Amino acid sequence: GDSGAMRAAAERHAQLTKPAGSLGVLEELSVKVAGMTGTYAVPAPAVVAVFAADHGVHAQNVSPWPQEVTAAMLANFAGGGAAVNAFAKNNGVDVRVVDVGVATPVEQLDIVHAKVRPGTRDLSRTDALTEDEAHKAIAVGFDLADQLVKDGYRCLLTGDMGIANTTASAALIATFTGATADAVTGRGTGIDDAALAHKTAVVRDALALHAVPATEPLKALQAYGGLEHAALAGYILGAAANRTPVILDGVIAGAAALVAQAFHPAVVDYCVAGHRSAEPGHAVALKQLGLQPLVDLDLRLGEGTGAVLAYPILTCAVRALAEMATFEDAGITS
Amino acid sequence: GDSGAMRAAAERHAQLTKPAGSLGVLEELSVKVAGMTGTYAVPAPAVVAVFAADHGVHAQNVSPWPQEVTAAMLANFAGGGAAVNAFAKNNGVDVRVVDVGVATPVEQLDIVHAKVRPGTRDLSRTDALTEDEAHKAIAVGFDLADQLVKDGYRCLLTGDMGIANTTASAALIATFTGATADAVTGRGTGIDDAALAHKTAVVRDALALHAVPATEPLKALQAYGGLEHAALAGYILGAAANRTPVILDGVIAGAAALVAQAFHPAVVDYCVAGHRSAEPGHAVALKQLGLQPLVDLDLRLGEGTGAVLAYPILTCAVRALAEMATFEDAGITS
Repeated sequence: GDSGAMRAAAERHAQLTKPAGSLGVLEELSVKVAGMTGTYAVPAPAVVAVFAADHGVHAQNVSPWPQEVTAAMLANFAGGGAAVNAFAKNNGVDVRVVDVGVATPVEQLDIVHAKVRPGTRDLSRTDALTEDEAHKAIAVGFDLADQLVKDGYRCLLTGDMGIANTTASAALIATFTGATADAVTGRGTGIDDAALAHKTAVVRDALALHAVPATEPLKALQAYGGLEHAALAGYILGAAANRTPVILDGVIAGAAALVAQAFHPAVVDYCVAGHRSAEPGHAVALKQLGLQPLVDLDLRLGEGTGAVLAYPILTCAVRALAEMATFEDAGITS
Repeated sequence: GDSGAMRAAAERHAQLTKPAGSLGVLEELSVKVAGMTGTYAVPAPAVVAVFAADHGVHAQNVSPWPQEVTAAMLANFAGGGAAVNAFAKNNGVDVRVVDVGVATPVEQLDIVHAKVRPGTRDLSRTDALTEDEAHKAIAVGFDLADQLVKDGYRCLLTGDMGIANTTASAALIATFTGATADAVTGRGTGIDDAALAHKTAVVRDALALHAVPATEPLKALQAYGGLEHAALAGYILGAAANRTPVILDGVIAGAAALVAQAFHPAVVDYCVAGHRSAEPGHAVALKQLGLQPLVDLDLRLGEGTGAVLAYPILTCAVRALAEMATFEDAGITS
């Protein structure tokens, strides 16, 4: 971030018609956004990019849902029937759905078609992606962020869809934080104790098989995928390269942000944590990223719902900084 | 709330295209709102009523701000320069400012004029209000809620302004919860340790002086005021009488909601806690009300800022219930 802009924003906050610090976390947030953009402009319009892909590790029974649900949900997004559509309509956020690696054919849908391959390979047996595939998926996200900023969007939100993607997320979060498989593996869309123990063992064995060091983000993407994680990492890097705030959704985005951070630590200056997911790895990821979530309401849906829910909180914070009267304007002396 | 409508809403949630329970707190919230209104309609448009009044206990040096700041801030609200104006503009919420008892003349402002008296008497010495004054202030809030619903508003938010109003709030919260003065007295707009100790002693002595039982809400308003607390209690009762959701702001609204609850316990079925204030009495009040705050970002400004910040979260929750596709619509089977 631009430290001069941040200093000026903090000084302006001290002059606004409110007790010092009384907007709590929103004051730091607005100062951080001023550091990203160099202005007090409200970051609008906003768009949520929902990156969708499938996972070879689905073959290991880590999810109760059939893989075809990824494609079925893409049709639901395209038709406007999912939670992210309802939230986005409510909060004035546009939705772009991106096929970066769905296993089922979805050519018929009116979405962004950027399939790198139809799902990753099984991370419990082999590398999920080749180096070339990982690079291509990163570029899908980076280029989309670039294009969205060119199209006039001033706030980019992350979304994701992919049956079994909490498994890849757990492996990535463990890689970059040093946490154990137990600490970062969760129930995803909702599995029982036995299924959770099995899923945790899959993550633990995969970490031992690949043994990627925390300094090797590209190798981590090759080892574990997913294609949406790679695209999200590129999208986050692209937002930062354009000095544009990016609101992270839940655990998938948290894992992708750790990848992006490993590539370029300064990208975190452009990240806002929309919410804290109920998935345990998310809190571990947020701690490593140094981000405090704006909303904490036990959501565990993904799609970008937590990011979209948080968007008006971010714009309220910036609008207060931009538009409030100063004590001098209002003729108030303490 | 309407238990049939709540049951139907919960059943609908189970059929929507998302894992069961994955919208966390928002699912219960939307079911609660369905119980209030008997429909799935998004509660819009919304309005925040900012009730303003002064407090005789200001004479006891419980606040670092001069009493005239209440009137100056009303001018700021009327001019659109306060935090609540910025948040309300951002979130599409209308603002109504109500003078229910400001000490300084404010006739020149384009606001709702309903002054019952120019500030309360000093609660540390005598009753803050007569029975008649308390009734009149309650009626100001109740009648405004009625009128706002007639005007077409479908969600009522609470706001407040009044130098020294956290002192009256502390006394009310202690009365209805049985908590000690220490547990419910806070730094308000920001006071140091010595000033906090003094303010706490003022609250403790006032509780001993008046000794109002928790079953006597009218006597509590007479003893402690404030005029805005009485109006807010009436406003909350009026919203409930109109089966209209009311989003509570911070500690002032929490104290007023305890008064309303003591009059009619069922009003809490129509209340949503917008946020949790940094003021310690607020958490005590929310616990007694049985409400979970939607936002918890260390705000301690009042004005309605926390309620306005939470409004899009409520509408997202209801919109998801109203507009999402079912698994049957989307052709998805688990």
